[in-house]
Amino acid sequence: MVNIAVLGYGTVGSGVVEVINTNHSHINKRAGEEINIKYVLDIREFPGDPVENILVHDYNTILEDDEVSVVVEVMGGIEPAYTFVKQAIERGKSVCTSNKELVAKYGAELLADAKEKNVNFLFEASVGGGIPIIRPINQSLTVDHIDLISGILNGTTNYILTKMETLGLAFESVLKEAQEKGYAERNPEADVEGYDACRKIAILASLVYGKQVDYEKIYTEGITKITRDDFIYAKALGTSIKLLGTSKQIDGKVYAIVAPFMIDESHPLYSISGVYNGILLHGDMLDNVMFYGRGAGKLPTASAVVSDVVDAVKHRDTNIMTIWSAEKKKLGDIEDFSCAYFVRVKGSNMEEAVEQAFGSVKFVKADENLSSETAFVTGVMKEKEFKEKIKGFDLITRIRMA
Amino acid sequence: MVNIAVLGYGTVGSGVVEVINTNHSHINKRAGEEINIKYVLDIREFPGDPVENILVHDYNTILEDDEVSVVVEVMGGIEPAYTFVKQAIERGKSVCTSNKELVAKYGAELLADAKEKNVNFLFEASVGGGIPIIRPINQSLTVDHIDLISGILNGTTNYILTKMETLGLAFESVLKEAQEKGYAERNPEADVEGYDACRKIAILASLVYGKQVDYEKIYTEGITKITRDDFIYAKALGTSIKLLGTSKQIDGKVYAIVAPFMIDESHPLYSISGVYNGILLHGDMLDNVMFYGRGAGKLPTASAVVSDVVDAVKHRDTNIMTIWSAEKKKLGDIEDFSCAYFVRVKGSNMEEAVEQAFGSVKFVKADENLSSETAFVTGVMKEKEFKEKIKGFDLITRIRMA
Repeated sequence: MVNIAVLGYGTVGSGVVEVINTNHSHINKRAGEEINIKYVLDIREFPGDPVENILVHDYNTILEDDEVSVVVEVMGGIEPAYTFVKQAIERGKSVCTSNKELVAKYGAELLADAKEKNVNFLFEASVGGGIPIIRPINQSLTVDHIDLISGILNGTTNYILTKMETLGLAFESVLKEAQEKGYAERNPEADVEGYDACRKIAILASLVYGKQVDYEKIYTEGITKITRDDFIYAKALGTSIKLLGTSKQIDGKVYAIVAPFMIDESHPLYSISGVYNGILLHGDMLDNVMFYGRGAGKLPTASAVVSDVVDAVKHRDTNIMTIWSAEKKKLGDIEDFSCAYFVRVKGSNMEEAVEQAFGSVKFVKADENLSSETAFVTGVMKEKEFKEKIKGFDLITRIRMA
Repeated sequence: MVNIAVLGYGTVGSGVVEVINTNHSHINKRAGEEINIKYVLDIREFPGDPVENILVHDYNTILEDDEVSVVVEVMGGIEPAYTFVKQAIERGKSVCTSNKELVAKYGAELLADAKEKNVNFLFEASVGGGIPIIRPINQSLTVDHIDLISGILNGTTNYILTKMETLGLAFESVLKEAQEKGYAERNPEADVEGYDACRKIAILASLVYGKQVDYEKIYTEGITKITRDDFIYAKALGTSIKLLGTSKQIDGKVYAIVAPFMIDESHPLYSISGVYNGILLHGDMLDNVMFYGRGAGKLPTASAVVSDVVDAVKHRDTNIMTIWSAEKKKLGDIEDFSCAYFVRVKGSNMEEAVEQAFGSVKFVKADENLSSETAFVTGVMKEKEFKEKIKGFDLITRIRMA
């Protein structure tokens, strides 16, 4: 029997307890041993709840109990999660976490700690919710040089963009509805400004390159400026607008960016709508590989956490090799990141001026109500070139194209 | 340094050599040791080829060399592959194979042999080419009861169906073109009759249930009867026609079937076209998860094989747990498999007779040239019910709907 402790009895924590209880014998068979939840840690009380008898408020009870060999950290946030996880590993316990902030910031350090102690630090649920992606990158995509990782990594923003697209609604009204339905937080900043996707692409990129990609260094733009009109143009172009977290190698340099992109229907992420997530990787041997599933939600996320517990149990006293050193991965300057751009500028009949600045472009006509502006798609150019060429125009919006 | 031997220098075998040579230092880092190809076995000579100096014709050279710890079997077919693999494991060597016939037939036995010898029998490339699917099922999807596996598992047939759909061509002419391009074999039976997909779904189902699913027991229908007209109707219905290998739990029973299915655009496999493969799984906790990539091709398949070599090197002297016993998984009778059907019967104005037999159905009008027939979509019913109800009609075709 393996004793585990669950830190945090919120959405994911209660999901972990539910998943283990519901599929207990199946999970035990796959783990090769019975998994027993010995403690649940939370500052709150849960009178009448099944975990009432195993609820503890003092982390030291867990830390000092040598019978607990796996700690599940699903509290979120940096502190006290970081201290708790650090201490658990120090005491020779494996840790499984869904905490993307923690992993993005301290992943390299905690992996090194775990290696030293011959235990495991696992974080499948930190990216892509229920989608198996961390373990496939570590265990399966070991042969290829990966030159592209691009993902729809945040279910809330994808839900909002999908509703804007299919129902022709404005950002604010969809956000309000998503908040009412519980798909978006009351403070939606981390989702809609792209901060959540930024931490996730930082984790994926760190694993792919084997070096620390600091999320603070990743250029990040959210979806708050995307309008109904943008979707009218997107439709005319046969594209969709998705918030992508991308890490791409161009001419030997690695660029990382989180921003809304227009993608057409030949793109593997085009048809991923609603709360689903998708992660595309391109390798020099494999070509494209894509992983798709529920990027969030209590049970899918909990299932991913428990799959880590199973793996930790199977690898008792064996550190699973994960290459992610603290050495910083050098990222290219975002001013040198190149792509094509969809652009809207104020003024009708701007065609001549546009072509003078941008050379040959593709003009887009979408709607009579939009006749007081000029819209076009540029060729591929660097960010800094775009900024230079757009000077002198009254820019309404620009959306990158992938 | 780890010495490996490659059995078979055909498409995949030469791909394995190319992948290891091209990404040598990257792969060595991920494996934690240098991988050296000591032998290539083939009955042919390859004068001037880089493998000329390591080419052997007698398998015993490899078998008796205790320096060889990993054998890569990429010959295909049952014999001599089975004997060679069996002997290699017996001698304490791990085996990595892309051979779906071998794995479907002898997977349980060879896994048991490998476990006994504390080595590994790995077969990531046997299903889905370059798509990581075997390892994710074994290592990541360990928590859920999987009640559906459904995949586009054969690139050749998906290429043919995609061309028929997009260009309005007949089966025969697309097959001919695919053969000329090398996308289809000169003897295309294994692909177009669904035998290849059948072996692959048998492997996936065996891993998911942990018991032997015999491919001979799986009801299998190919795509040779799909016509241009079927695609005209499919378009009118907003669906696509895909050859799916499916294992599905209905009312506690497991059914397995390979057949063309109509799927609509809400289906995760809808947009998978051309030579790409996709595999959808549904779990009780995870909901839908889908894996997408190149289902065939020299380098993607070779990349998957080499990812197994890396795993074998990382797990020297440790058997990776894979649950697939020789005990047979009982499958439900295909006569009890239930779904909706798209049906075409001869005769115009058959609406009344159709509704008398099938109750309420959805009639489909597609094209004036098809006015001498009646087409409709039934409700969900069992195979045997369908067969009963269709008696008395002159059936042109029926396609299941998923």
